[in-house]
Amino acid sequence: MPNFQQIINRIHSDLKATKNTGEVADYIPELGKVDGEKFGIYLNNIHGDNYEVGDTQVPFSIQSISKVFTLAMAFASQGNELWKRVDVEPSGNPFNYLSLLENEEGIPRNPLINSGAIVVADCLVSTLKNPKEDFLQFVRGLAGDDSISYNLEVAESERKTGFRNYAIANLLKSFDNLANPVEDVLDFYFHQCSLEMTCEQLSNSFFAFANHGKCMKNKQCLTEKQAKRINAIMLTCGFYDEAGEFAFEVGLPGKSGVGGGIVALLPNHYVITAWSPPLNPKGNSYLGMQALEQFTTETKSSIF
Amino acid sequence: MPNFQQIINRIHSDLKATKNTGEVADYIPELGKVDGEKFGIYLNNIHGDNYEVGDTQVPFSIQSISKVFTLAMAFASQGNELWKRVDVEPSGNPFNYLSLLENEEGIPRNPLINSGAIVVADCLVSTLKNPKEDFLQFVRGLAGDDSISYNLEVAESERKTGFRNYAIANLLKSFDNLANPVEDVLDFYFHQCSLEMTCEQLSNSFFAFANHGKCMKNKQCLTEKQAKRINAIMLTCGFYDEAGEFAFEVGLPGKSGVGGGIVALLPNHYVITAWSPPLNPKGNSYLGMQALEQFTTETKSSIF
Amino acid sequence: MPNFQQIINRIHSDLKATKNTGEVADYIPELGKVDGEKFGIYLNNIHGDNYEVGDTQVPFSIQSISKVFTLAMAFASQGNELWKRVDVEPSGNPFNYLSLLENEEGIPRNPLINSGAIVVADCLVSTLKNPKEDFLQFVRGLAGDDSISYNLEVAESERKTGFRNYAIANLLKSFDNLANPVEDVLDFYFHQCSLEMTCEQLSNSFFAFANHGKCMKNKQCLTEKQAKRINAIMLTCGFYDEAGEFAFEVGLPGKSGVGGGIVALLPNHYVITAWSPPLNPKGNSYLGMQALEQFTTETKSSIF
Amino acid sequence: MPNFQQIINRIHSDLKATKNTGEVADYIPELGKVDGEKFGIYLNNIHGDNYEVGDTQVPFSIQSISKVFTLAMAFASQGNELWKRVDVEPSGNPFNYLSLLENEEGIPRNPLINSGAIVVADCLVSTLKNPKEDFLQFVRGLAGDDSISYNLEVAESERKTGFRNYAIANLLKSFDNLANPVEDVLDFYFHQCSLEMTCEQLSNSFFAFANHGKCMKNKQCLTEKQAKRINAIMLTCGFYDEAGEFAFEVGLPGKSGVGGGIVALLPNHYVITAWSPPLNPKGNSYLGMQALEQFTTETKSSIF
Repeated sequence: MPNFQQIINRIHSDLKATKNTGEVADYIPELGKVDGEKFGIYLNNIHGDNYEVGDTQVPFSIQSISKVFTLAMAFASQGNELWKRVDVEPSGNPFNYLSLLENEEGIPRNPLINSGAIVVADCLVSTLKNPKEDFLQFVRGLAGDDSISYNLEVAESERKTGFRNYAIANLLKSFDNLANPVEDVLDFYFHQCSLEMTCEQLSNSFFAFANHGKCMKNKQCLTEKQAKRINAIMLTCGFYDEAGEFAFEVGLPGKSGVGGGIVALLPNHYVITAWSPPLNPKGNSYLGMQALEQFTTETKSSIF
Repeated sequence: MPNFQQIINRIHSDLKATKNTGEVADYIPELGKVDGEKFGIYLNNIHGDNYEVGDTQVPFSIQSISKVFTLAMAFASQGNELWKRVDVEPSGNPFNYLSLLENEEGIPRNPLINSGAIVVADCLVSTLKNPKEDFLQFVRGLAGDDSISYNLEVAESERKTGFRNYAIANLLKSFDNLANPVEDVLDFYFHQCSLEMTCEQLSNSFFAFANHGKCMKNKQCLTEKQAKRINAIMLTCGFYDEAGEFAFEVGLPGKSGVGGGIVALLPNHYVITAWSPPLNPKGNSYLGMQALEQFTTETKSSIF
Repeated sequence: MPNFQQIINRIHSDLKATKNTGEVADYIPELGKVDGEKFGIYLNNIHGDNYEVGDTQVPFSIQSISKVFTLAMAFASQGNELWKRVDVEPSGNPFNYLSLLENEEGIPRNPLINSGAIVVADCLVSTLKNPKEDFLQFVRGLAGDDSISYNLEVAESERKTGFRNYAIANLLKSFDNLANPVEDVLDFYFHQCSLEMTCEQLSNSFFAFANHGKCMKNKQCLTEKQAKRINAIMLTCGFYDEAGEFAFEVGLPGKSGVGGGIVALLPNHYVITAWSPPLNPKGNSYLGMQALEQFTTETKSSIF
Repeated sequence: MPNFQQIINRIHSDLKATKNTGEVADYIPELGKVDGEKFGIYLNNIHGDNYEVGDTQVPFSIQSISKVFTLAMAFASQGNELWKRVDVEPSGNPFNYLSLLENEEGIPRNPLINSGAIVVADCLVSTLKNPKEDFLQFVRGLAGDDSISYNLEVAESERKTGFRNYAIANLLKSFDNLANPVEDVLDFYFHQCSLEMTCEQLSNSFFAFANHGKCMKNKQCLTEKQAKRINAIMLTCGFYDEAGEFAFEVGLPGKSGVGGGIVALLPNHYVITAWSPPLNPKGNSYLGMQALEQFTTETKSSIF
């Protein structure tokens, strides 16, 4: 077995020493305030071991990574009914593109682009008693950690500047693919995106996807089949128009967020999280992408 | 270990008994002559065992499956230079769509759609001494079988009716992404598509992708890394606008052709080939898709 | 000079006798309540003569025809500054399509599609003291008729169901091409669309476009050049993806609305208005289009 | 009546004195050899008067202007049957764009973009005995001038480099909207584009469109209705994605070519031709566009 600690240490120090050409996202004002120098890598395997280096205990905004949690929660409760309202095909387009939605009669290409995630949010708003509270409990349960919370300032910042998400939600509404009022769905959506987690918490919350659906505290949060399918969606759709590149270079299912977090997993083996706020031109963490690529290359771990 | 023979037998007889709503491709006249009742499943694992049921020894036109072979041959010889001329992102579009090509300045989305495969063919025409002969030897080497050949009538039939491929090649030429004359590249391309193989031969020829790049006769045809990367491309791009669905339902890298063949593989374990000519509306074998889905469900084998 | 009265009489009775395959718009519930049998034709020339047949004195919802009025008002006050925020090219797309907007960085193709008209509305909301009142006075001035009003129920009905317009306005906002809050702009926009006018009032209000910018009461509402340019925009963009067909078949600048109204004009000669609620598949009045085509054919009047 | 000679003299000298930021087209090597300083303006009215200034007697490559002649010839012989194979809507896209063709099942948007003109060429190849000779006679007849000829070197130059036109023709073929072999249709098409005419010849050849279908020698080449309809198509589609701008700024039906020629007409009054090879970014003559704009502004002549 490779020495995980040694490998992540070296990757961390090597990348720290390189010039970071990425840029911290500032389209949501609150996100722009983060310290761009932060950089952490955390790995936990299904045997309960964990390894970490750098800023792994600093909470950051997980943003789009939350789409995996809402997908898991909706899929677990609704099963394949969900696929009537959202497809599972890669989009080949930036994360916030509307055009495909229009050409495809309001059925988003997949649940990991904004339009698809808004449909998933709508499902949860329809079925949960207290959507924001219940969803938070679900994520806390996945991670086995009750300290995870929303950042209400980030949620409010997104609400004030999220015109494109309002456009998407209204367009979905015009296609009859949004059951609840736009404001209610987006209120939930902006909250889910504002979740703050550390590298450790994020790795723990993805444990179930590497572990046949069983989460940290050994509870079966998802069926084995559901976990597999969400992994498949992550692999084909988790990195927007860089999904093929990630599959090709890294070779693991994963998901990124504009907060600079990336989490990926090798089924039956481990979850790895990297966090560094500056983003490459496609909106994925500049250092995070390289860290994962080097990690899977050195450990020869890949699903392929 | 599951009893592979028993499983493929049952799947074969179950599917034989269902109504096949697919339709045999006839846009190339020669293809329309095939017997739509044919149905075979063949599986070989990396330990040398093999299992088969039905029409596994009947040669059929592999069509687009040949794109994996040309990709492997070009990637093996040119390495990452290849990616300057073709991308690795899923297209989200039908296999013969031109529009993306136009929006993306003549760089095809990936090497498994027609435009990408024509660029790969152009690379081989540039570098091989006797392109058609040399490529045939490469495929024979992969499969360890010298009886594999082109079907010249199919190649000629494609040449006469392949207006859309002529359109693609000319468009690539207008973007300076085709080094050789259109006729030369398409002559090679129509021949590669006309390759005829049995289920057994096809499974054998994909052995290297499941076996770290080593082919049947234990020769290292590809590096381990190249094999992994081609698997990644197959997973994200191997089934056109049904790629996400295949990853989701089947969970294996694979490739289909309009001749009704599908081949998929579980890295380090096995290759499975199914053949049944009638196609679903997305252009993939109607029974073949179901056969593979049932197989991976029953054997719980998936890369996820 | 042709006998206008006789010609419109015959066209009216001929068309009344044909089967009307159009359908009354009901995407806004209030619009669906109109009597589909209504049919009127009104013509006024620049010498002050007028001719009418059928339901020319019944007020109806002018809907998109109002875009010509807001364009005229904004162009008159801002001049060519306006073209920094909206282009003058035909779109070749349905009236409520968003995709082009996304590909063209938030600059609508022209002021007569919804996105363009919403930008024009935003200009007026920015510059007018009491936007809804001032605009109403402007239209009353054009027509020389103070009885013209908004239909507040229609405006409210559009507000409640106008998700696609909310999507457009939010998308414009995300591209920084909307200065005022979405709600304020759309409140104005839904009111302008709800204007009710009779065939006679509509013809009178377009008098200035046929008369070098001078309106009914001989006031110079627009410069001669502005009137010409608005006519040019009507010809190339006034009928959405049927603009070329209208130029080809009718040969006059004009504008249609989903309320079933169409108004067209021969510069220096006349304005003609037809109203019949059932629409053809492209969203233009089924009988109205035919009435105008027959009229210009019989009178040999066309700008070409 | 304005003093046409004085006006075109002044426009010519004023524009000669300004900096020309346009660029001579060189995508066809032969076209790049033209003298970029050439600049001529020619006007003939329906009473037989004519006015000219500058290089009006130098033959140049009319290129896309020839699409009006093929359209006229095909429309005259086939009538409205033609519209089954090509539409009359503005495209809002560059002249050589393929994408719309794909989305619209092989029916080009209009006869003045390349795809539409290739369909029209196909019609003529089908119906004419000696297509190239017969078409040349038709154009000579329109202009009343037997010295007009093809430039065979330009035609050959286009054939060798016209990959995009080959792509279009093959795509049309794949949609069954091309009856003849690709090579035959393009041979005709490349010849039509290679026609060389002087400003005077071009103005004379458009005489019929300004004169109710009657050409220079008083022969009725087109019906009055056909002439009107071709004028309508020129207005909405004659300047690619600058069609709206031209209607707006100039206000006349017209057609441009990448050879730097522009011809426009005021029905019942005159034809005006301007020629200056350097093109603006949309592919229309930089000086020619300005010359026509200034001319219609000063003479207050516009169809609107």
